[in-house]
Amino acid sequence: MADQKDFNNVKAVVFDTFGTITDWRGSVTRMGEALAKKKGIEGVDWEAFARAWRAGYRPGLHRVISGQRAWTPLDVIHRERLDEILVEFGIAGHFTEDEKADLNMFWHRLSPWPDSIPGLLRLKTKFLIAPLSNGSLMLLANMAKHAGLPWDFIYSSDMHMAYKRDPEVYRNAVRLLGVKPEEVMMGAAHNDDLEAARKEGLRTAYINRPTEYGVDQVKDFEATSDYDVIVDSVEDLAIALGC
Amino acid sequence: MADQKDFNNVKAVVFDTFGTITDWRGSVTRMGEALAKKKGIEGVDWEAFARAWRAGYRPGLHRVISGQRAWTPLDVIHRERLDEILVEFGIAGHFTEDEKADLNMFWHRLSPWPDSIPGLLRLKTKFLIAPLSNGSLMLLANMAKHAGLPWDFIYSSDMHMAYKRDPEVYRNAVRLLGVKPEEVMMGAAHNDDLEAARKEGLRTAYINRPTEYGVDQVKDFEATSDYDVIVDSVEDLAIALGC
Repeated sequence: MADQKDFNNVKAVVFDTFGTITDWRGSVTRMGEALAKKKGIEGVDWEAFARAWRAGYRPGLHRVISGQRAWTPLDVIHRERLDEILVEFGIAGHFTEDEKADLNMFWHRLSPWPDSIPGLLRLKTKFLIAPLSNGSLMLLANMAKHAGLPWDFIYSSDMHMAYKRDPEVYRNAVRLLGVKPEEVMMGAAHNDDLEAARKEGLRTAYINRPTEYGVDQVKDFEATSDYDVIVDSVEDLAIALGC
Repeated sequence: MADQKDFNNVKAVVFDTFGTITDWRGSVTRMGEALAKKKGIEGVDWEAFARAWRAGYRPGLHRVISGQRAWTPLDVIHRERLDEILVEFGIAGHFTEDEKADLNMFWHRLSPWPDSIPGLLRLKTKFLIAPLSNGSLMLLANMAKHAGLPWDFIYSSDMHMAYKRDPEVYRNAVRLLGVKPEEVMMGAAHNDDLEAARKEGLRTAYINRPTEYGVDQVKDFEATSDYDVIVDSVEDLAIALGC
């Protein structure tokens, strides 16, 4: 890991949110279980439901990133996948249209990993902190409000009209701040996100989340490259950056 | 004034910052006086300096809004005007290039009006709150950090590549949130800002700041139209919106 002095010119630390800052699998599971209890739905493995929902995420984004599909907000991609899995899990009939819309808002109400808020509060004393996420503005603002994420500002995918790992996302984040690429550090639990950020000149911090996907996790058990910082938590990142 | 019930569908309240949330005249005056004392510069009327600096703002923006000039970040417009008035006030020779760059950062360190933070904190309990300002992202993020403005997120002019009162600013703010125009309320101390917002379908709140420009103030002593809310402070706006 590089010496702390190397990071003196960093002005902003930006973060992946789904998986890196928030625990989508645990959150969606808990919200699903609570909703099922309230509605008297039995026999659903909500943890498997969470993983199935997420499994539609990267293919959904890919169609936009590859140009096969015009710009589509993430809430729409989440909703299309929700409609598929409600059928797959045999519970589509339990929900009205309004209830399905509310189910889709699960992604606006994710809970942070235990180290995220303590770490972000420390980082905020020295750096501007923001999500650099594929989420929409309303999703990320609601998530921050719900979870207490102390962002200084929010980058949403609709501001870039692009999804990570499209290089335009990282370039636009740097452009909007009016800084040099090396003055921005990207924090993420996903190697490909950091590789894409590094190609655009950003600093990189790998935050290990080896349980993010549960039994579906097939990669990102560890850093696969020599990023500027490699840590196990956002709190450790704050320490590594001298906060 | 409309009944509180009319605002139940409002999701976000967005604010002009220079003049409405922060007191640029008092702030620039105080920072100038402190700097002059430190550097031993005498005989400068820093309140007049602040007004002179601001007097270059609307003409500077106008050249961009009217298409006479390509997109130019606000920090650049501030700096160009600074260079003019340093000469006009006969003090250009007192500052190095680095010191001039730091002087330009005065606009990143403006102080809020006394009612702004109490009002924003109340509004934040019920609505998303954000600046909809001509400032750049770094300026607005620094300002929020310095002044303790509790924004949920930040809209910067570079996100829209347009300055108010260009209708694109209000349209893009609504688009980025993925809501209907009437679900966003614009709060400002400037009638023309609210007129422009209303044309795009936003709700409007006039917050009276009749001393903003000091002796240079020639308009905006009161609301000149029947906006949805007309108040004398951000706290009164919070009360009017049931917070």
